[in-house]
Amino acid sequence: MNPRKLFAEFLGTAFLLIGVVGSGIMAQTLSDGNIALALLANAIATGCMLYAIITTLGPVSGAHFNPAVTLAFALRGEHPWSAVAPYMIVQIAGGIIGVWATHMMFDQSILQTSTTMHRTGGAQWFSEIIATLGLLFVIFGGIRHRPDAVPPLVGLYITGAYWYTSSTSFANPAVTIARGFSDTFAGIYPGHIAMFIVMQIIAVFIGHVVLNWLFAETDD
Amino acid sequence: MNPRKLFAEFLGTAFLLIGVVGSGIMAQTLSDGNIALALLANAIATGCMLYAIITTLGPVSGAHFNPAVTLAFALRGEHPWSAVAPYMIVQIAGGIIGVWATHMMFDQSILQTSTTMHRTGGAQWFSEIIATLGLLFVIFGGIRHRPDAVPPLVGLYITGAYWYTSSTSFANPAVTIARGFSDTFAGIYPGHIAMFIVMQIIAVFIGHVVLNWLFAETDD
Amino acid sequence: MNPRKLFAEFLGTAFLLIGVVGSGIMAQTLSDGNIALALLANAIATGCMLYAIITTLGPVSGAHFNPAVTLAFALRGEHPWSAVAPYMIVQIAGGIIGVWATHMMFDQSILQTSTTMHRTGGAQWFSEIIATLGLLFVIFGGIRHRPDAVPPLVGLYITGAYWYTSSTSFANPAVTIARGFSDTFAGIYPGHIAMFIVMQIIAVFIGHVVLNWLFAETDD
Amino acid sequence: MNPRKLFAEFLGTAFLLIGVVGSGIMAQTLSDGNIALALLANAIATGCMLYAIITTLGPVSGAHFNPAVTLAFALRGEHPWSAVAPYMIVQIAGGIIGVWATHMMFDQSILQTSTTMHRTGGAQWFSEIIATLGLLFVIFGGIRHRPDAVPPLVGLYITGAYWYTSSTSFANPAVTIARGFSDTFAGIYPGHIAMFIVMQIIAVFIGHVVLNWLFAETDD
Repeated sequence: MNPRKLFAEFLGTAFLLIGVVGSGIMAQTLSDGNIALALLANAIATGCMLYAIITTLGPVSGAHFNPAVTLAFALRGEHPWSAVAPYMIVQIAGGIIGVWATHMMFDQSILQTSTTMHRTGGAQWFSEIIATLGLLFVIFGGIRHRPDAVPPLVGLYITGAYWYTSSTSFANPAVTIARGFSDTFAGIYPGHIAMFIVMQIIAVFIGHVVLNWLFAETDD
Repeated sequence: MNPRKLFAEFLGTAFLLIGVVGSGIMAQTLSDGNIALALLANAIATGCMLYAIITTLGPVSGAHFNPAVTLAFALRGEHPWSAVAPYMIVQIAGGIIGVWATHMMFDQSILQTSTTMHRTGGAQWFSEIIATLGLLFVIFGGIRHRPDAVPPLVGLYITGAYWYTSSTSFANPAVTIARGFSDTFAGIYPGHIAMFIVMQIIAVFIGHVVLNWLFAETDD
Repeated sequence: MNPRKLFAEFLGTAFLLIGVVGSGIMAQTLSDGNIALALLANAIATGCMLYAIITTLGPVSGAHFNPAVTLAFALRGEHPWSAVAPYMIVQIAGGIIGVWATHMMFDQSILQTSTTMHRTGGAQWFSEIIATLGLLFVIFGGIRHRPDAVPPLVGLYITGAYWYTSSTSFANPAVTIARGFSDTFAGIYPGHIAMFIVMQIIAVFIGHVVLNWLFAETDD
Repeated sequence: MNPRKLFAEFLGTAFLLIGVVGSGIMAQTLSDGNIALALLANAIATGCMLYAIITTLGPVSGAHFNPAVTLAFALRGEHPWSAVAPYMIVQIAGGIIGVWATHMMFDQSILQTSTTMHRTGGAQWFSEIIATLGLLFVIFGGIRHRPDAVPPLVGLYITGAYWYTSSTSFANPAVTIARGFSDTFAGIYPGHIAMFIVMQIIAVFIGHVVLNWLFAETDD
């Protein structure tokens, strides 16, 4: 494996979690119980970070930062299967390191376990399928028709999806696992992680069929 | 009809309603009666979704997602009349399915009827004419002068129009009908739908005359 | 004069005032005394409208919508002096019509006179010089180096300038006059209009000297 | 030294501080103790200003506006060492003049010294390293892969970084010094400036090694 690609996936996912968890901590600290305002800041900051890391690292590693995206590219034959496990490992490691760096920045205990219990249940599981399908939809539609627009597409889609999905769109197994390590605004109780990831993987397979047909390069 | 075009119109309109209704539910739930904050989140999330679906599906189906836009293109001779009814049917169906999917995500009864009674009266009817004219203005002006800018033009115009029109800019018969099926923040009482659609159609005919002249391809 | 250019300046300025005054009314109505939130919505909606009208009408009329900008272009020799008065007249007329249309949309008396008394004093006059200089700075810098970026430059500059100037950046004599006709959030007492316009004109002359040198096309 | 380059660095840094300090004053004045809302407006306005000054002045002076960025370019051999001190001097002078102009706009005493005491401690120092590394990351990654995207990259990164770093991302010695001259929302107690700058410089050296490797122009 090319070490620069692996480092880019590691660094990008670390930055992504700094964006998600850091802005969540700042928002919760300052918003004095106004959850809508906290989520708005959290959503905007996350979109900003996604735009930054996808624009700069896309040409290096493809800017997946997400095991579900890596799996989806592998299924399409656009990412070698031998590079799937290395990508996923550095994504998950990067995510956790990003959470720990965030805790250091905000003067919190580095090692934490989330006690946020409300991220579960059928409605949120269904939401994760929609959220992940939508993410794959903008990535593959963007690559097919406007490759230069992929960074704003993903950034804006996720900023919006904090609001129009009930789970606030995790849509990423590495992010889901890493957020289990933070007992802050963005946290998820570790016992609830597995079902979110199952839904994200289901969305990859649905997306593989539907999106490949929708964005096929055949003529009309 | 090309099934991919129809599916694109169906899927895009479904996603649009997920954006509008989902972010409305989330915003109302979290904002604790702060309607300005709820509308701000609703407007930003809707703009994000519009940018995403127009960028990715524009090259597939034209990204109308709106019977008024389909009618306007047909009047200009840029959409076959035989394809008008099929487009409108899948747009309306997609909108309703999008509302129902949103209700599932937010753990609500799927079948609802709006009881929101304030979306009526001459001022709001006039507002829907202005709102729809403005939408056609950015679409046809964008296509004429900066086709690649149509997705941000529509997304930003609508984000703003939640604020600078008194009706919060429905500007879309399929969206208007679908929002009748949701008794949430974005809902509209079904008895008030028809007049909104009448105003949107009036705007199409005004726009047809004014905008075709304003953005004509003749030399100066 | 080409009637399409004049109509474009009229329509664009009307839309601009709909953006400024309409979002101000909506924001004040919904924000329940939270002025920061009202100004945030007002600023974002105004930026969205500016992006929309400059992108679509720039290629038609130059998208001035502002007598100070028309004067600045004339001083640079890029707008015929004979077309200065016609542009200014339709800009002012468009602004007033835009305010009246907004009052109709929001079910208010059409004819109003602002009673907002706080938009005066040396600090705000100085602020209008800075605000207008900054506006000319982004327009002429953008035209010189990134013409396609002028719409987001102006939209984002003004969104920010609602916050970083104490006058909230009128920076436009047509907008200043038109806002005198609205006794709402965006209003300005008519007796205070003249000094704002004086400051905006002073900025045009300062900008003419400084910006022409800064953005000159000579080699380094 | 080319006087236009120096003036561009002076003017751009002055505008940057108007953006940061002006929006901070406006936000604090209007937000009635709602710090999250104040920071959101402050972050958005700063990002808008950064986009404006980098787009327009980038082709003139490189749009550093930041001694840490000038040092980083010099280390890469892309800015002459003889031009480092002149750039830094005008950046610092521009920043201070920008703060003073802001005080004039907001009718405050021009000469102030910050009494904001909370911008210190190991967590915030670590935050400044991360914040500055992230800034250099988007600048050098953008220049390498998408030079036209550098203005939105920096603007959006900093808008987000107000939220995802605990120090709100000063990431700029000229900005840090200038903010010592304002006893307002954006201020920093002068005794705490030195350590922020030390951290910013440490980040330049870490970034020099890591980013040059990550964004090297060698083949994969």
